[in-house]
Amino acid sequence: MNNTDEWQGKLQNISRLAQFNTWLDLEVVSATEGEVTLGMRWKKEMGQYNGFLHAGIQGALIDTACGFAAATLSGNVLASQFTVRCLRPAVGQSFRVVARVLKPGRQQIFTTAELYATDGGEEKLVATGDTLLVPVQT
Amino acid sequence: MNNTDEWQGKLQNISRLAQFNTWLDLEVVSATEGEVTLGMRWKKEMGQYNGFLHAGIQGALIDTACGFAAATLSGNVLASQFTVRCLRPAVGQSFRVVARVLKPGRQQIFTTAELYATDGGEEKLVATGDTLLVPVQT
Amino acid sequence: MNNTDEWQGKLQNISRLAQFNTWLDLEVVSATEGEVTLGMRWKKEMGQYNGFLHAGIQGALIDTACGFAAATLSGNVLASQFTVRCLRPAVGQSFRVVARVLKPGRQQIFTTAELYATDGGEEKLVATGDTLLVPVQT
Amino acid sequence: MNNTDEWQGKLQNISRLAQFNTWLDLEVVSATEGEVTLGMRWKKEMGQYNGFLHAGIQGALIDTACGFAAATLSGNVLASQFTVRCLRPAVGQSFRVVARVLKPGRQQIFTTAELYATDGGEEKLVATGDTLLVPVQT
Repeated sequence: MNNTDEWQGKLQNISRLAQFNTWLDLEVVSATEGEVTLGMRWKKEMGQYNGFLHAGIQGALIDTACGFAAATLSGNVLASQFTVRCLRPAVGQSFRVVARVLKPGRQQIFTTAELYATDGGEEKLVATGDTLLVPVQT
Repeated sequence: MNNTDEWQGKLQNISRLAQFNTWLDLEVVSATEGEVTLGMRWKKEMGQYNGFLHAGIQGALIDTACGFAAATLSGNVLASQFTVRCLRPAVGQSFRVVARVLKPGRQQIFTTAELYATDGGEEKLVATGDTLLVPVQT
Repeated sequence: MNNTDEWQGKLQNISRLAQFNTWLDLEVVSATEGEVTLGMRWKKEMGQYNGFLHAGIQGALIDTACGFAAATLSGNVLASQFTVRCLRPAVGQSFRVVARVLKPGRQQIFTTAELYATDGGEEKLVATGDTLLVPVQT
Repeated sequence: MNNTDEWQGKLQNISRLAQFNTWLDLEVVSATEGEVTLGMRWKKEMGQYNGFLHAGIQGALIDTACGFAAATLSGNVLASQFTVRCLRPAVGQSFRVVARVLKPGRQQIFTTAELYATDGGEEKLVATGDTLLVPVQT
């Protein structure tokens, strides 16, 4: 499957199967082989003490986008490990995460992601992260 | 504040201020200086495609427990970076995360955590993680 | 192979095949299935600007010990990713790193390590780390 | 200090103060505010069992380049934590590492790096990494 619209639709359907992704109301904004962008709107239930986006949800966005990017090249995958680097306060009305595959492989897939927040019309990089995944053996 | 019950109550109150912690219904099981245990019950809205606990929520548990452990020694803190290592499928009816401070400091606090799942009465280590935090400058 | 002395001798021989390990003059202090301890004496060529042990050599100790621990359970392995957390200044006349396998697997092996420095007769934990490895496919 | 040649010379002098950097024979190829490139030639004492560049030396290159990039913006710094992701076998006659600052700050500096190997005239990305640093308090 090479077509962008096909990947976008397919990943959106997969995302709906994950109940927490549905709670987050994740939108697959674009998807090509090796790169996926997700969007999410802020709601107050997502907040940390100070009203920032909870670090766990930052992790969910990074992990999910990395998994989707890996899936476009390697089929079913599972995350082994992921890291989130919190560069700036994650404050905004909407969020966008862009993930891409650095190196696909038979044994493991290296991916990286950037998380942006749009606050009052201005978009800022708020976090970076990376995920190492393995293909699901069948 | 040295008393365990005091820390437990204080952290439980802080946790209620974080809307996402409330959605997760996190319980502060125990808290001493430098070590905190949180508990959480599974609900299906927390699921990944395959019914495992979503990796983002594993991250939320690890990040929150590490932050609470750091707070018992260093007051207000912010996470700089956290990592989650997914050792086994995170499947269970309840979850328990134990975080402790490896090294407190003026500039940064190193913490580590272990996440356990109880499935059918048996508890297993499903993930480990670590969080690096900074004191909030006031 | 279950015998501790056998693993110690075997890993010491393997270590001699790695030229950088020979330059470091790594000693396999003990080795059982899933846990390996290495020792190293300080020499001034290992120094950072301030006379601390160079962070890269801290990484070499952690990565090598984790690889050896993984090898006792999984045969030939390659590191995918490793992290070093620098808790305290790595100053000492000798160093000891203890690595153990958290979770061996067919697709990947999770390991963790602690690095200690002995300075003037007192031993301190100076760094922790972890390494994710994959079995070498033959 | 804004001038590239000045930073290059200054960092080269600092590098000579670190005995292990001298053993590695690190060259400061270029340096601007927030971005530094180092070069290194392979020698067989740097080898792993299989003749790849030892993962510890990959870490030394990434950690050192990230530290130098941070120093151009934040003065004296110390690494808190670094990660190396081993994408491909690190085999080559020479190596080049490019580090840049993602986010400088008063409390911490986030940096990222890419390590390239040139083997038989062809350059490949062999590893990526990141380092979190703190300013040295004086």
